[in-house]
Amino acid sequence: MTIPKDARICLSAEEIPKKWYNLAADLKGIKPMLNPVTREPVKEKELEAIFCKEIIKQEMSKERYIGIPDEVREGYVALNRPSYLQRAYRLEKYLRTPAKIYFKREDMSPLGSHKGNTALAQAYFNAKSGITTLTTETGAGQWGTALAMVSNLYGLDSTVFMVRGSYEQKPFRKTLMNTYGCKVYSSPSMQTEYGRKVLKEHPETSGSLGIAISEACELAAQSGGTVKYALGSVMNHVMLHQTVIGLETMEQMKIGEIEPDYMVACVGGGSNFAGFTFPMMGETMRGKNECQYIAVEPEAAPSMSKGEFKYDFGDSAGMTPLILMYTLGSEFIPNAIHAGGLRYHGMSPLVSEACHQGFVKPVAYDQTSTFEAGVLFARTEGMVPAPESCHAVKAAMDLALECKESKEEKTIVFCLSGHGYLDLGGYEKFVNGTLESSAL
Amino acid sequence: MTIPKDARICLSAEEIPKKWYNLAADLKGIKPMLNPVTREPVKEKELEAIFCKEIIKQEMSKERYIGIPDEVREGYVALNRPSYLQRAYRLEKYLRTPAKIYFKREDMSPLGSHKGNTALAQAYFNAKSGITTLTTETGAGQWGTALAMVSNLYGLDSTVFMVRGSYEQKPFRKTLMNTYGCKVYSSPSMQTEYGRKVLKEHPETSGSLGIAISEACELAAQSGGTVKYALGSVMNHVMLHQTVIGLETMEQMKIGEIEPDYMVACVGGGSNFAGFTFPMMGETMRGKNECQYIAVEPEAAPSMSKGEFKYDFGDSAGMTPLILMYTLGSEFIPNAIHAGGLRYHGMSPLVSEACHQGFVKPVAYDQTSTFEAGVLFARTEGMVPAPESCHAVKAAMDLALECKESKEEKTIVFCLSGHGYLDLGGYEKFVNGTLESSAL
Repeated sequence: MTIPKDARICLSAEEIPKKWYNLAADLKGIKPMLNPVTREPVKEKELEAIFCKEIIKQEMSKERYIGIPDEVREGYVALNRPSYLQRAYRLEKYLRTPAKIYFKREDMSPLGSHKGNTALAQAYFNAKSGITTLTTETGAGQWGTALAMVSNLYGLDSTVFMVRGSYEQKPFRKTLMNTYGCKVYSSPSMQTEYGRKVLKEHPETSGSLGIAISEACELAAQSGGTVKYALGSVMNHVMLHQTVIGLETMEQMKIGEIEPDYMVACVGGGSNFAGFTFPMMGETMRGKNECQYIAVEPEAAPSMSKGEFKYDFGDSAGMTPLILMYTLGSEFIPNAIHAGGLRYHGMSPLVSEACHQGFVKPVAYDQTSTFEAGVLFARTEGMVPAPESCHAVKAAMDLALECKESKEEKTIVFCLSGHGYLDLGGYEKFVNGTLESSAL
Repeated sequence: MTIPKDARICLSAEEIPKKWYNLAADLKGIKPMLNPVTREPVKEKELEAIFCKEIIKQEMSKERYIGIPDEVREGYVALNRPSYLQRAYRLEKYLRTPAKIYFKREDMSPLGSHKGNTALAQAYFNAKSGITTLTTETGAGQWGTALAMVSNLYGLDSTVFMVRGSYEQKPFRKTLMNTYGCKVYSSPSMQTEYGRKVLKEHPETSGSLGIAISEACELAAQSGGTVKYALGSVMNHVMLHQTVIGLETMEQMKIGEIEPDYMVACVGGGSNFAGFTFPMMGETMRGKNECQYIAVEPEAAPSMSKGEFKYDFGDSAGMTPLILMYTLGSEFIPNAIHAGGLRYHGMSPLVSEACHQGFVKPVAYDQTSTFEAGVLFARTEGMVPAPESCHAVKAAMDLALECKESKEEKTIVFCLSGHGYLDLGGYEKFVNGTLESSAL
């Protein structure tokens, strides 16, 4: 017995992709963001108060490929890129399925999730354009941690506004950001006019992502150009940077002679799903394959499964441009679930448009069933998935069980977006039998 | 600019070593363990109550190489082996040192540390010999987690006795073991005669590793042969299994044309240090190179720096065989430090003998200086080292600064034994300025 060739497919550091893939080149009929006051398409100029020019150019681009600078490829080495593509032999055996199950290892990043792929690119382009500080909001802490870490790589400072509830409940997330040298403020904070206003009116508030976004944007807008804002999901440039995941996966599938019937990933704002599927989906759009793309939502925030496709705000305060997307309404507040990264009322406009045109099939699961899948995955394959990633595991397992029923030898490739070691609270409840259901 | 060849040196899954290296073949004058009553060398038979035969054979072996079964090599894939050897370009630049600094990535294991390398081997050999359950003690939780995870891979059950203090202070460690399907008992427990006795006499005790070891050994000894005990450090077979780290490193150094002047690793019981250095050290003993081996201790438990080389018990209760080693005395209780894995009164007999013969140079650091080094490493290279690994980082940095002084272009290779994401308490105190000194 030797180790099967497809047990793990690795690429070398030199094989880190040289270009990102932009779905906007192949997805027809994309509608622009609108200025909420004028209802006119947002112009590049309007975004310059908070984003640097290169990022704005990427946001608006229709080019199919956009070059990845060497300095970013070098940074990706520090994120352990290329990540492995691995076959779940033990899980297949446990399920007694004829299906082949592969998974892409975004849990391999020292950050524990895929978030660094875009954080790093944004840090690089901002540093290059003379910015000194990046700022953002963070809820659960994954995105803030990513930005804190990568800022160092390009000599930037970072300031994160962390939703007060999380700030108080997750002190180690703050510790981690501090360890990376980041300034972390509990939001609402005394650092911004908006924060002071909220604190005066609601001194006991536990904060919200909306408030934290407003604080970070204010810091950027008021800085006179030295501070810019970085966003962790939803927008096109974020999806673009994340395609490094899918481009590697395609290269690995070529090496392993893997032809996927399904590609599966969880969706909150859409960046993990987009990054993983878009390069392959572009080929589907160009008629080169018939792969199906499964976007796995939490029942607590099923924006594509149950939302409307319409123009809506990206935030709850109504300060962003209007975006055409699947949305549960910008004032919708999802139930508290452990997969904090999936608690979003809307969806990336590119993912939304692809779904609207039938290229994406959304499914939604209750959190108890996803943790059950996560535990089974941990016991068979050894990695404890992040609560978000458990959604992808669950959907992949269900597809494999369908194959068992139908006796079809299909190939399922899913994205393990991150590990769960920094978020064991949900597992604690699950193993103790006290995890609550999360349905809408 | 392209990515430098030695930025990261990878091996494929097929390149996982096929044999472990046994230093006992090259290290002369090793003295046997003694039965504390008869003062006679311990016989294989005497160990059979708690260990399976294959493990005992490895413990006593003088063969230079011992084959790694294919099933174990397959299991190593699940632990992300081979791990990367990486160059710390950013750290070098920050330190302005002419030295080259490389580090071996044991933090890449889904377990977050090197502990799985031997846990997995022990699980395999026990499963093969018909054992149904493995049991062990755990303090901080790293070792218990490793055993819990790998037991699944070979269809074994696992039972871990966790020191009550940790059990109550680190609920997530218990959660993690439970997630892997492991039974975890707070020790002293009602599960064993010894545990019940201790609880009756000291109902308020916070437990100790000594008590937990006794409980695990009792469970194994009373099981009639279905339950065996697994040890995470100190003993020869544990060092043997860990040499997979050093064997990979040597292969990677060959590929990268790296000739180390120093190999550096932290030491508690010695398994990370031994695993990393022994294959190269064997060549030093055979006159093939002049590499120096730096073993980094905490000032709180400086067994080689300040201990005596003598026969002593491995545990505090005086129940193990007598072992010739560097020891601070089996009743020595180290100060509480965050690097829980380095709080041991003794040292692996192989590491001790190699040190006694001048092949190992011990150094000791206070924990504040090691966390400072860990933070600097996180900010330059991106990974947050485990508190134990911070000791190796600190020593490597000091060597690099010596090279800066002497303008020597030396090559330093250290082992990053694990990441710190499950142990951020020390970092929290460090970044808040409240970390206490830990000197003896």
